[in-house]
Amino acid sequence: MASVVSPHDVWTSFAAVRERGPLVHNLTNYVAMDLSANVLLAAGASPAMVHAREEAADFARIADAVVVNIGTLSPHWVEAMHDAAEIAAERAIPWVLDPVGAGATPYRTKVAIDLLERGPTVLRGNASEILALAGAAEGGKGVDSTHHSVDAVSAAQELAARTDGVVAITGAVDVVTDGTTTVNIDGGHPMMPRITGLGCAASALVAAFAAAGKDFVAATVGALATLGVAGERAATDAAGPGTLRWRILDELYTLDERSVTVGARLTAS
Amino acid sequence: MASVVSPHDVWTSFAAVRERGPLVHNLTNYVAMDLSANVLLAAGASPAMVHAREEAADFARIADAVVVNIGTLSPHWVEAMHDAAEIAAERAIPWVLDPVGAGATPYRTKVAIDLLERGPTVLRGNASEILALAGAAEGGKGVDSTHHSVDAVSAAQELAARTDGVVAITGAVDVVTDGTTTVNIDGGHPMMPRITGLGCAASALVAAFAAAGKDFVAATVGALATLGVAGERAATDAAGPGTLRWRILDELYTLDERSVTVGARLTAS
Amino acid sequence: MASVVSPHDVWTSFAAVRERGPLVHNLTNYVAMDLSANVLLAAGASPAMVHAREEAADFARIADAVVVNIGTLSPHWVEAMHDAAEIAAERAIPWVLDPVGAGATPYRTKVAIDLLERGPTVLRGNASEILALAGAAEGGKGVDSTHHSVDAVSAAQELAARTDGVVAITGAVDVVTDGTTTVNIDGGHPMMPRITGLGCAASALVAAFAAAGKDFVAATVGALATLGVAGERAATDAAGPGTLRWRILDELYTLDERSVTVGARLTAS
Repeated sequence: MASVVSPHDVWTSFAAVRERGPLVHNLTNYVAMDLSANVLLAAGASPAMVHAREEAADFARIADAVVVNIGTLSPHWVEAMHDAAEIAAERAIPWVLDPVGAGATPYRTKVAIDLLERGPTVLRGNASEILALAGAAEGGKGVDSTHHSVDAVSAAQELAARTDGVVAITGAVDVVTDGTTTVNIDGGHPMMPRITGLGCAASALVAAFAAAGKDFVAATVGALATLGVAGERAATDAAGPGTLRWRILDELYTLDERSVTVGARLTAS
Repeated sequence: MASVVSPHDVWTSFAAVRERGPLVHNLTNYVAMDLSANVLLAAGASPAMVHAREEAADFARIADAVVVNIGTLSPHWVEAMHDAAEIAAERAIPWVLDPVGAGATPYRTKVAIDLLERGPTVLRGNASEILALAGAAEGGKGVDSTHHSVDAVSAAQELAARTDGVVAITGAVDVVTDGTTTVNIDGGHPMMPRITGLGCAASALVAAFAAAGKDFVAATVGALATLGVAGERAATDAAGPGTLRWRILDELYTLDERSVTVGARLTAS
Repeated sequence: MASVVSPHDVWTSFAAVRERGPLVHNLTNYVAMDLSANVLLAAGASPAMVHAREEAADFARIADAVVVNIGTLSPHWVEAMHDAAEIAAERAIPWVLDPVGAGATPYRTKVAIDLLERGPTVLRGNASEILALAGAAEGGKGVDSTHHSVDAVSAAQELAARTDGVVAITGAVDVVTDGTTTVNIDGGHPMMPRITGLGCAASALVAAFAAAGKDFVAATVGALATLGVAGERAATDAAGPGTLRWRILDELYTLDERSVTVGARLTAS
């Protein structure tokens, strides 16, 4: 079945990011900061990492989108995450929640659920995290998934309906849903999970696309499909994940309309 | 007009860093730590990242230079920054202030101004940050500049006179001034701002050069010109910022006298 | 003299890591997180970085090994390090202590000694750190060593006997001892210390190997020899440390039995 988002829509979303260069405020984990910032810069956005409670709300007031990623959370940071999410909601700018490792520890799961209750514009996780948040399963293997995206589609649809937002599951296949419409994105490369923080960087890219667009399903599909095309192209002849990582940045910087529209493989669920 | 610092001085400064291998104590942001450390190592210096208040002063006592970078600041870190800056002043070793995002939030601006009052040996920022600190303009776009270096020259000269130090503005053109003498550095590559933390790494390199030299204008020009030459050479045939980043490290490791003296383009202001 | 660990044992240990994919819980420094995670992923393990006291013990309960690295320590993190080490001991899973910069400041040395008293499965440091912990010498140059591995062998053997664990000194030559048996590992490349966090990543890799094996001397030798082979191969024709870093990840991902058994150079001490 044809997806409601077309490969050409992916390109349009990406072109909007490059043109507008949205300022993305990241409250994200230590491991993923470098790659998230470089992915955003390569794609044409302007990243900033700001986490102190003394300024998180103020910074969210000048940002075009906010990313809340709990990968290396601690209590002070969680307070700042709530502050930033609150301002994002107040200003009606998009904010993305990345519930890294939800289900792995009680603390982490509770923090993720509390943030989820604020209604993120987009929730992006792997299948294990989405299942854990939906209360449908135990967590995965630490921060890596032990489930396939397809196992978590119902959970994602339910969470989307409950939060009135978009939910994305990433994995070998990415799934994006608002509870009603569901889009599958094929592509990427099996070597991609061997790069740390690439899922987190995907969340950051979703925030940039959401800031540059209006339709959050299209923006989320756009970000994930663009990263998938970049990863697939970067993996050609790549000797390993070391090469793959820097080539993905080069691809995000150079991708053109033809590459994106030919490479994006979207289907309705 | 001829610059007071010659391309040969740039090489002499760089050779001194390689020979002495100064220990650079960095209190810097999470995003830039990896690249700052790798830039220092590639250039022949010895980096350490130490931020706890329990040891920041002690570490500054054994360091050859200190870098204070407020990119991802929080109150505890700011206290340690003051401790380290105080010891640097007491021991008369150089310390460099990088006021990342000054002007973006009231907290950040206040922290930067408080640190500035301690009189850093070198203040390095982008044009928006320098203008914000001089009280001459609002901040830039988060941590990225919305002004050109040339717009901030008067502000830099005024700040240099006020702090009795050196001020460097980096951008498409870099400007270094002590309030009296001003040197412009041409070079680098437009793709360089698409690498996160490269400006922060420039501050770290300035600290290494300042530790190995005596003349802080020459040291600052030396560090920025060396990084510019490395970036310009690394950008040749680079597909994107992914490639550029690792090639800059390779260049810093291999640059020789000829490459530096031919590549450094300095003019008086 | 022939080492008790053979090149074939190195390969067997590495194959076990790839097959079992151990979950490695890292409480490590900001600078080394990215490279540690990428080294673990490239080698087939599953890394997680978790440091909050609210969850460190809980996470250690689901992990296969724990890494405690004090590179960028602060009091809250140190508490969580003790929590995680305690759970590791309770569950009899291996934990590795990396005493970054021990000897450089009184605080750092004290924290390292307190953790050492918990009896890590493996202690891995450079010669200066091992000497400082044995009370045999002042610290090195910040976090870099000013001593050669061979200078610290007696200190390592004494520490191994005292803690009833394995001690590894890394440098131009790596030395692994349990106090009775001592193995030297030749290899690697002089450019490797010009990559930040590679020693820390070595500690993380030791944890993965220790989780997948039973004999901790063999596991430690296995991890360090594997990294040495990867580094040596990656350095062939490498222009500098920028190239070397990503090539090491590619090598860890692709190394086969022949490369490992031919490349691992082990001797008894």
